[in-house]
Amino acid sequence: MYQATPKQSAPEPGPQAIHHEWRTAENSATYVQSKLRSMKELKPNLTLLDVGAGSGTISITFAKAIPKGLVTAIDLNPDILTRAATVADSEGVTNIKFQQADAYKLPFADETFDITHCHQVLCHLKAPWGVLREMLRVTKPGGILAAREGDLETECVWPELPGLLRFHRLAVDIIKIGGGSTNAGRQLLSWALKAGAKREQATATFGTWCYSERADKDAWAQGIIKMVGAGRVHDLALKMGLATEDELVGMGKAWQEWQETDDATLGMLHGEILIQK
Amino acid sequence: MYQATPKQSAPEPGPQAIHHEWRTAENSATYVQSKLRSMKELKPNLTLLDVGAGSGTISITFAKAIPKGLVTAIDLNPDILTRAATVADSEGVTNIKFQQADAYKLPFADETFDITHCHQVLCHLKAPWGVLREMLRVTKPGGILAAREGDLETECVWPELPGLLRFHRLAVDIIKIGGGSTNAGRQLLSWALKAGAKREQATATFGTWCYSERADKDAWAQGIIKMVGAGRVHDLALKMGLATEDELVGMGKAWQEWQETDDATLGMLHGEILIQK
Repeated sequence: MYQATPKQSAPEPGPQAIHHEWRTAENSATYVQSKLRSMKELKPNLTLLDVGAGSGTISITFAKAIPKGLVTAIDLNPDILTRAATVADSEGVTNIKFQQADAYKLPFADETFDITHCHQVLCHLKAPWGVLREMLRVTKPGGILAAREGDLETECVWPELPGLLRFHRLAVDIIKIGGGSTNAGRQLLSWALKAGAKREQATATFGTWCYSERADKDAWAQGIIKMVGAGRVHDLALKMGLATEDELVGMGKAWQEWQETDDATLGMLHGEILIQK
Repeated sequence: MYQATPKQSAPEPGPQAIHHEWRTAENSATYVQSKLRSMKELKPNLTLLDVGAGSGTISITFAKAIPKGLVTAIDLNPDILTRAATVADSEGVTNIKFQQADAYKLPFADETFDITHCHQVLCHLKAPWGVLREMLRVTKPGGILAAREGDLETECVWPELPGLLRFHRLAVDIIKIGGGSTNAGRQLLSWALKAGAKREQATATFGTWCYSERADKDAWAQGIIKMVGAGRVHDLALKMGLATEDELVGMGKAWQEWQETDDATLGMLHGEILIQK
């Protein structure tokens, strides 16, 4: 278990973290907010499980939203949780605990949490409905399950610089090689029904990612520029023959150009689902 | 000029109208609502120009939102305005006038309207920035220009029935044959800058279309089923060799199946832009 206490050895945020840590419950779980508020009015000490919490910025903003409640943030990767604990601590958030766990086998009893949540987790998995089934199991009757997954195939950019389109193909290839889904958003409702949810319990919507303002473009582009310059994605691309070093350099330059272009935009659909248990 | 008075000879809504008339300012101009409210507080008698108003359901809901203001709804096609006037009359909306006009040459003096608006118009045009330039011209200083355009290439459906994907290709072909853009949403900011807007005046966002609930799916699917069964789209597809009669029948059957499928979803990104003049 990873407590939100200072870690001298906390890893620095990695390349992806620049964008990942931009995410909050406000900008990435808007579809949950109204329901969360009404549940909190009835029960201030809500319990929330965040599955695949990563560097924890969404979990932490959930914790801030339910100051009398408790957030349990789990991830398969203990290192990223160490980073998440550091972020929580630096923000003075104490009503959160971090725990290494396998989302396919949640180490919690049936009907433990008022809210179960995941964001951009299922798209990476081979059997996402297995995780949704587990999340449903540990959700209390009267509680909710909330999930949001990107639909990478709908990603659009302007201007359509060749290096940006090449990066998109690389991102698609990497998700597919890992056994994930590049069209997760549109399938979320289908996965939820496969996991045992009833259609009348489910509300399916689409949200968006939109980058057009300078600060947002900077965060997005710089994350990718570092990612294609070195590290896991860079190494995997070369090792699997998904891109050459020259192509990776070209992608980085294209994102730099995009970042500095006045009329640049990026959009992507995200599927969202709320299950009322 | 088409007044909102009863028309004995008003045409019945066409196939596309089933979906087009589902559109309102609330569901299709959400990005304008906050600005509209704050402008109305300062000036209840706002004037609004709706460009390419079609069957007028968005224009009419704008008129309801500014009961002391006046909406001018224009379209190149006088027949659809006759339909729009009938809809306005049936809803008892009188602060709206309809006028046949060319969006490239707006018949209004500079700085006439507090708000200029268009929805799903520019994507059909060869020089959309020409219309935006005209809209900017007739917008008062301190007023706003608001535009929203779909990005057809981002349309996603589930389940991915072959007939649905075939219909998507037909829709793309038809837009392209007409000289329009199937990636309009992502280009909207670019077009606005080309029309003379300054970057700092512009706020670019993305919205979505989302169909997953039965009533929404019914409206969407039935509109398409009629469209591929007979009329302009059906005839154009055959005439231009874009699809065979068998393929059109297959598309209709696929949409019928989609409509009746519990886990069916459809999403599409829409580019949105607000220009503060």
